[in-house]
Amino acid sequence: MPLPFWQTVLWELLGTGTLILLGAGVVANTTLRGTLGHGTNWLLITLAWGFAVFTGASVAAPSGAHLNPAVTAGLLCAGQLPWSAVPAYLLGQFTGAFLGAVLCWLAYKPHFDAHDEPRATLGIFATGPAIRALPWNLVTEVIGTFVLVFWVLTSPAAKAADSSGVPQFGNSALGYAAVAFVVIAVGASLGGPTGYAINPARDLGPRLAYAVLPIRGKGDPDWPYAWVPVLGPLLGATAAGLLYRTLPV
Amino acid sequence: MPLPFWQTVLWELLGTGTLILLGAGVVANTTLRGTLGHGTNWLLITLAWGFAVFTGASVAAPSGAHLNPAVTAGLLCAGQLPWSAVPAYLLGQFTGAFLGAVLCWLAYKPHFDAHDEPRATLGIFATGPAIRALPWNLVTEVIGTFVLVFWVLTSPAAKAADSSGVPQFGNSALGYAAVAFVVIAVGASLGGPTGYAINPARDLGPRLAYAVLPIRGKGDPDWPYAWVPVLGPLLGATAAGLLYRTLPV
Amino acid sequence: MPLPFWQTVLWELLGTGTLILLGAGVVANTTLRGTLGHGTNWLLITLAWGFAVFTGASVAAPSGAHLNPAVTAGLLCAGQLPWSAVPAYLLGQFTGAFLGAVLCWLAYKPHFDAHDEPRATLGIFATGPAIRALPWNLVTEVIGTFVLVFWVLTSPAAKAADSSGVPQFGNSALGYAAVAFVVIAVGASLGGPTGYAINPARDLGPRLAYAVLPIRGKGDPDWPYAWVPVLGPLLGATAAGLLYRTLPV
Amino acid sequence: MPLPFWQTVLWELLGTGTLILLGAGVVANTTLRGTLGHGTNWLLITLAWGFAVFTGASVAAPSGAHLNPAVTAGLLCAGQLPWSAVPAYLLGQFTGAFLGAVLCWLAYKPHFDAHDEPRATLGIFATGPAIRALPWNLVTEVIGTFVLVFWVLTSPAAKAADSSGVPQFGNSALGYAAVAFVVIAVGASLGGPTGYAINPARDLGPRLAYAVLPIRGKGDPDWPYAWVPVLGPLLGATAAGLLYRTLPV
Repeated sequence: MPLPFWQTVLWELLGTGTLILLGAGVVANTTLRGTLGHGTNWLLITLAWGFAVFTGASVAAPSGAHLNPAVTAGLLCAGQLPWSAVPAYLLGQFTGAFLGAVLCWLAYKPHFDAHDEPRATLGIFATGPAIRALPWNLVTEVIGTFVLVFWVLTSPAAKAADSSGVPQFGNSALGYAAVAFVVIAVGASLGGPTGYAINPARDLGPRLAYAVLPIRGKGDPDWPYAWVPVLGPLLGATAAGLLYRTLPV
Repeated sequence: MPLPFWQTVLWELLGTGTLILLGAGVVANTTLRGTLGHGTNWLLITLAWGFAVFTGASVAAPSGAHLNPAVTAGLLCAGQLPWSAVPAYLLGQFTGAFLGAVLCWLAYKPHFDAHDEPRATLGIFATGPAIRALPWNLVTEVIGTFVLVFWVLTSPAAKAADSSGVPQFGNSALGYAAVAFVVIAVGASLGGPTGYAINPARDLGPRLAYAVLPIRGKGDPDWPYAWVPVLGPLLGATAAGLLYRTLPV
Repeated sequence: MPLPFWQTVLWELLGTGTLILLGAGVVANTTLRGTLGHGTNWLLITLAWGFAVFTGASVAAPSGAHLNPAVTAGLLCAGQLPWSAVPAYLLGQFTGAFLGAVLCWLAYKPHFDAHDEPRATLGIFATGPAIRALPWNLVTEVIGTFVLVFWVLTSPAAKAADSSGVPQFGNSALGYAAVAFVVIAVGASLGGPTGYAINPARDLGPRLAYAVLPIRGKGDPDWPYAWVPVLGPLLGATAAGLLYRTLPV
Repeated sequence: MPLPFWQTVLWELLGTGTLILLGAGVVANTTLRGTLGHGTNWLLITLAWGFAVFTGASVAAPSGAHLNPAVTAGLLCAGQLPWSAVPAYLLGQFTGAFLGAVLCWLAYKPHFDAHDEPRATLGIFATGPAIRALPWNLVTEVIGTFVLVFWVLTSPAAKAADSSGVPQFGNSALGYAAVAFVVIAVGASLGGPTGYAINPARDLGPRLAYAVLPIRGKGDPDWPYAWVPVLGPLLGATAAGLLYRTLPV
């Protein structure tokens, strides 16, 4: 039996909010002036995003812990989620991502105020390309998301503790650790060109927060790039879902 | 059936002592002059605090491995721990934290004696703000502790092997690994502004040890800051406990 | 009952392709000009290869997740795989490794085009010796592969969830995490001299991709070295398989 | 029923050999000239020793995976191992540690030959104090080993899959991962002053190998220090075993 609409919204909101608070937080910690983690490298970022997924996903266990419209889309394309369930997932994910970004800004408020290069703060909220080449940036996001969503669909780890009709990350710490490991792998390996959004809510929610929050001396939210980390993950997830349907499983 | 008073004290003392010995130890290793880990970065610190939680929590399994007055407070606010159990937890936690700090000082004795910047040694024992702005520092501690305690209350990982009436970190390595992952995430992501006390005993016990131990050329224990890492975690834990009571779980 | 030929090919191809996409990806991320992970060190590389194994191995669960001709050879020598099953494994592994390398090139296309030292790009695809001393390089690959394959054959972790007649990495996230930890250990500890191929498909497939892809200003594929990361792993695996047969297990 | 003498020797030898090959290997990788991991820091070393313990311990599952005379001593003092079993454990551990060190030297042979500071090679094999103060160095080794052995004796993680009369690291990947996490914590946190031998075989076996192997231009094996990493771990283990007997468990 699926969860009621507002419970799905609630758990996806709490889980995605936790994910973005922690995920944006580690970039703030390495980027902002005077933090204790200032200048730490890509490894801290990729490990922390992995453990942020672990934390957020275990909070959102009751709704299956999608936390990501691409995961929702992949399950839909694979025929494992009804269309009627989609709005609640998306609403919770985007709202949670926005609120998580707001909390991250509050947690680092004195450092945002002291930061001497305000333009660099966009990277704390949203992803951006290391080399701007939008079609290729799209390809990178498609490939990275394909790996994540295909893993979710096929891996016994993701389904290990499945007790409902919807394949999910499982109900045990092990399933959440598994998805964290995959996110670490994708970030360390495929995050180099675009910062691995691999999740439309992860990028669009915090980008909107960046646009509306009164962050001191903030720069441009780069809306012309914003479609890449939305479309790319959805294309990758669709490809993974469709491939999955053709497999002898 | 709850543990007898002195057994709760004993296990919380042993677990928190192990946690602080290892946690203070890694900061000593990166801070003090001439150690093998001197100059290693924030990543070593956050990973080691996570594995310190793993080690201490599995030692303190019989008492439910709170190790942290904020966890005790969160369970209390969530209605899952009787008031009568609280004193034993607090006594064990603060005593253990003090003794763990003393053992850390003994383990690094020659390096404390050789350290040429004695004032920097406070950071081995207690947390401090990167930018001193006490109301905002409090906000950071509230948010970080909220994430930890809300996760403890909601996550199936934390309750996986629960065999008593009190939600706990579980009785298997998996539950302890789960809480370690969450602590790593909170440290890497939200530790930048204040060093993530997220635990009153973790900060106050070692700060007291710093104040009374004959550490060569030591600096000021910064008592004016000491209320922040006590009040912040308790407020965050209370918020998590009260929110949890409103949830449809 | 063994899988049909084409299903073995399919799952080994998908798993090995995922492994190489992620594994080559992390080297691209640290090597190529202007990536977000540029200049990160050996630790990122070894951790990411470990999590790449985790991801690829859980994708390839239906075929037992060999992903590596050395693992196939070790099981063969230990008497736990029939000769008739070998061609499907090898076909899937080498094809997958080639395709994974192609996808990595696409994911990093703008960075390959911008890289100012094209000769250094071979290391993204294939391994090479830090000090060229072919007999000793062979010894290093033999020892590293022996550790991996002997662990696969003896460890209860590798066999934990075994439900077929063929010892495998298990069917749960735990078995895949276990092999990831072993690969991290081998990489961090024995990868220094030769870059730890420990897998003929991992080296030969991407080396061939490097030779045929139109990579801008690429260097020499170093075919004279290519036999070392093929023969070394096969010798190490054979030694592990034969030793295993003599053990009282 | 205990294992026959020679099977205990065999499994402890294989497990400890794997541990030391990988553990010495990571120090070689960071220390020796021209390796791919040259110059990586303390974090790589502590993580790799942890995963080396994971690998070696799962290989040595049939004998309970002590791999360490201090673990054997702790179980003895806790009354959980008969005196008659001790010789087989010690023989396997010291022989395995010696052979593992020899294999490490072979794996890094060209780098040992090219290393321009031969005296620094002792650190690849044996531990040494950052600041030479033997009584305090002993204290550090006592404290570090106490944490490890007390955890082994008390943690449900260590006993999770126990199926014999002897408390062991368990029979599943989880128990071995647990001990790896503890060893990472001890290394990161308490390894700063002495390099955390916390295991007499880990230090003495490779030190003997260093003394007898024809390593180019090697330095002094520092025998005057060699008693510290033997006596310290045994004292720490004895304290842990005796404390454990007084506990209400």
